[in-house]
Amino acid sequence: MRARKKKWAANELSENELIINDIASCKGNWECIFGNSNPVYLEIGCGMGSFIVENAKKHPHINFIGLEREKMVIVSGARKVREYNNTSPDNFIENIRFIMGDASGLNEIFAQREVSRIYLNFSDPWARRKKWAKRRLTHRNFLNIYKEILGNKKELFLKTDNSILFEFSLNEFIDNGLKLRNISLDLHNSPWAESNILTEYEAKFAAKGMPIYKVEAYWE
Amino acid sequence: MRARKKKWAANELSENELIINDIASCKGNWECIFGNSNPVYLEIGCGMGSFIVENAKKHPHINFIGLEREKMVIVSGARKVREYNNTSPDNFIENIRFIMGDASGLNEIFAQREVSRIYLNFSDPWARRKKWAKRRLTHRNFLNIYKEILGNKKELFLKTDNSILFEFSLNEFIDNGLKLRNISLDLHNSPWAESNILTEYEAKFAAKGMPIYKVEAYWE
Repeated sequence: MRARKKKWAANELSENELIINDIASCKGNWECIFGNSNPVYLEIGCGMGSFIVENAKKHPHINFIGLEREKMVIVSGARKVREYNNTSPDNFIENIRFIMGDASGLNEIFAQREVSRIYLNFSDPWARRKKWAKRRLTHRNFLNIYKEILGNKKELFLKTDNSILFEFSLNEFIDNGLKLRNISLDLHNSPWAESNILTEYEAKFAAKGMPIYKVEAYWE
Repeated sequence: MRARKKKWAANELSENELIINDIASCKGNWECIFGNSNPVYLEIGCGMGSFIVENAKKHPHINFIGLEREKMVIVSGARKVREYNNTSPDNFIENIRFIMGDASGLNEIFAQREVSRIYLNFSDPWARRKKWAKRRLTHRNFLNIYKEILGNKKELFLKTDNSILFEFSLNEFIDNGLKLRNISLDLHNSPWAESNILTEYEAKFAAKGMPIYKVEAYWE
């Protein structure tokens, strides 16, 4: 079963035109890939794609890119779009792509200033050991990478259910020159709840009544 | 019993030299009152004084002022100091005063730039109704008052157990030009726990395992 799944994923990975396999060809060419110069919003760790696909439906004049390390997972996101696009000619999402990769390699995928906003949704908090803080996607080493590829708005939006990651991130943002806005300690009971798009994890956490933290950080 | 208590409080209020009754004489004269030009740190709502008295012991080169609306309560703070000062000639706190009043009248008590830091500890969250937000001591109307009397460091330190007040305050600070640092979502399990001085409320909350929020905000 597992082998079959893997084979299926491998096929879809190479066949689904929304999944970009040749990473080397992307850097500096995103306007060409999307066929326009709209802003690019990147989700790092897009999981099965619920969040980014819904965003792409809602905001056709933004280009969305989902980055994900897991092959099986990224295929699900791309399949969501393909299925949606097959439902009716009126429903067609063109403004989305998926790439397999991780945050440490971002400057091999994007040239300077090619991205306008980065989403970090329910990233691994690496909370059990202090020395793991370097692995957090809001650690200053990652912020330096983000800053290089971000241009124009230079925004970094974070959602998490983990208070340790949230606290760490707020301080790391401040210490690295990011400004903060729209901080929420309970997103689903906040003024921002209505416009919030759920991730897969978020739907589960919220169902259990756990508070969700959110912040919009940005470099000026 | 109540009448007796009130009488006792009234006597101590007028007799304890640490409680300043003639508010009108204070404004612009704090250097004279303390006999030095050390920085002035003000706690708004000092309760029974544990926090500010401990601070005064620990930091003899800072002048501390406790502001409190409740007569019975402010007397307790002043009595703590008097008792401590009577224990031994080596223990003597000179750097503290108490005033009866509230935040809305601050600019009748202080001239511009007479205060360096304001502490808001476990202020009433006014969380039950949205329209009560204006009563919160971190509402922009109060921030404008604080900004007038703050000089030099212009710091505003907030501790609370209430997530609604904390979230509101963070956003209100940002929107009104304050910068943030050392944000904690669980102060007693943070690197700042060791140097933290407990208030009366905080000791109770912490004993129940409730997380304490803290932020240091400042105007540059």
